[in-house]
Amino acid sequence: MNIPSKLIEDAVEEVSKLPGIGKKTALRLVLHLIKQDAKATYGLSDALKNLRENITHCTVCHNLSDHSVCSICENKHSRDHKTVCVVEDVRDVMAIENTMQYRGVYHVLGGVISPMNRIGPDQLTIESLLQRLSSGEIEEVILALSTTMEGDTTAFYLSKKIKTLGVKVTAIARGIPLGGELEYADEITLGRSIITRTLLEA
Amino acid sequence: MNIPSKLIEDAVEEVSKLPGIGKKTALRLVLHLIKQDAKATYGLSDALKNLRENITHCTVCHNLSDHSVCSICENKHSRDHKTVCVVEDVRDVMAIENTMQYRGVYHVLGGVISPMNRIGPDQLTIESLLQRLSSGEIEEVILALSTTMEGDTTAFYLSKKIKTLGVKVTAIARGIPLGGELEYADEITLGRSIITRTLLEA
Repeated sequence: MNIPSKLIEDAVEEVSKLPGIGKKTALRLVLHLIKQDAKATYGLSDALKNLRENITHCTVCHNLSDHSVCSICENKHSRDHKTVCVVEDVRDVMAIENTMQYRGVYHVLGGVISPMNRIGPDQLTIESLLQRLSSGEIEEVILALSTTMEGDTTAFYLSKKIKTLGVKVTAIARGIPLGGELEYADEITLGRSIITRTLLEA
Repeated sequence: MNIPSKLIEDAVEEVSKLPGIGKKTALRLVLHLIKQDAKATYGLSDALKNLRENITHCTVCHNLSDHSVCSICENKHSRDHKTVCVVEDVRDVMAIENTMQYRGVYHVLGGVISPMNRIGPDQLTIESLLQRLSSGEIEEVILALSTTMEGDTTAFYLSKKIKTLGVKVTAIARGIPLGGELEYADEITLGRSIITRTLLEA
């Protein structure tokens, strides 16, 4: 693409580095910003810079946070600090928070064990989790990892480690999604949901 | 969406103002930037700010430009300043430049006459075009506007104005695209391409 302006070219170059944004889309976005009031561009530019300068990881749960302890870990009266939900990354924290069904705290692993991608237990925040557990204040760890080979491996590794500390380990339920029709469910999910059937109270 | 960090929330808010980018995509982009080296975010942020601070319009052709006269208007020896191609916006300039078939200069209208959107001749750079033409140095004006109702109206308005100055007015050819199959062409294009058929030289 022949861009007559060096300024536009630089901006397009930077914007097109974002995932899923090609040169054409980048050019469209950049031309949009030029058409808008300058405030719009400055707002965007400052928000990104400010984010990158000040964002940090919570020293307790490793979630992304504005401060050294995140708002969830800091909340002593309305969150249950005896239950820790272990997740892969910050997106999972947001997803669970959106359900409004969980009032415990989190531990963000920062990934899952994946020898193919050279991610072993040492690259994750597992050591920090075990330290949190060794304080004796935590009663239950809920594993909320993806049902992939890597997720299952990590769950297995974690449950073995955590059980030696005498802490209860649970995993989120797997089965047919609510509103899901049986005929469209894959065989593995359906098969597993029969094996792990739950007793209905009378 | 429940975002636990104010910094992330602000950045997502700003990114999702871009056209075609919703909150979910914005969050994905922002989390991507956090994962990358800080340099990536600063590069993007600075390129956008720098663009918006320094981009200007060429005082001659109204194209977006880094300087008060754009690189095309400034180029006196390899561009033909006797031919002016009138286009709607900067994207059209880029499209024509990419063909490598045009060595004249441009005039960017900044839109087309559209009473529905309250854009009349005064909102466009038509007065400036007529002034350029009145210098007597320009021999031909090529109208390269969209074949829409608004584009045709603008072309008609311009050709009437320009002819009174004694300057030749042409329009880019309309017809079946190269590689286009006749059976898939719309009737209006096909009908017009028969009426405006060109003589093949022996």
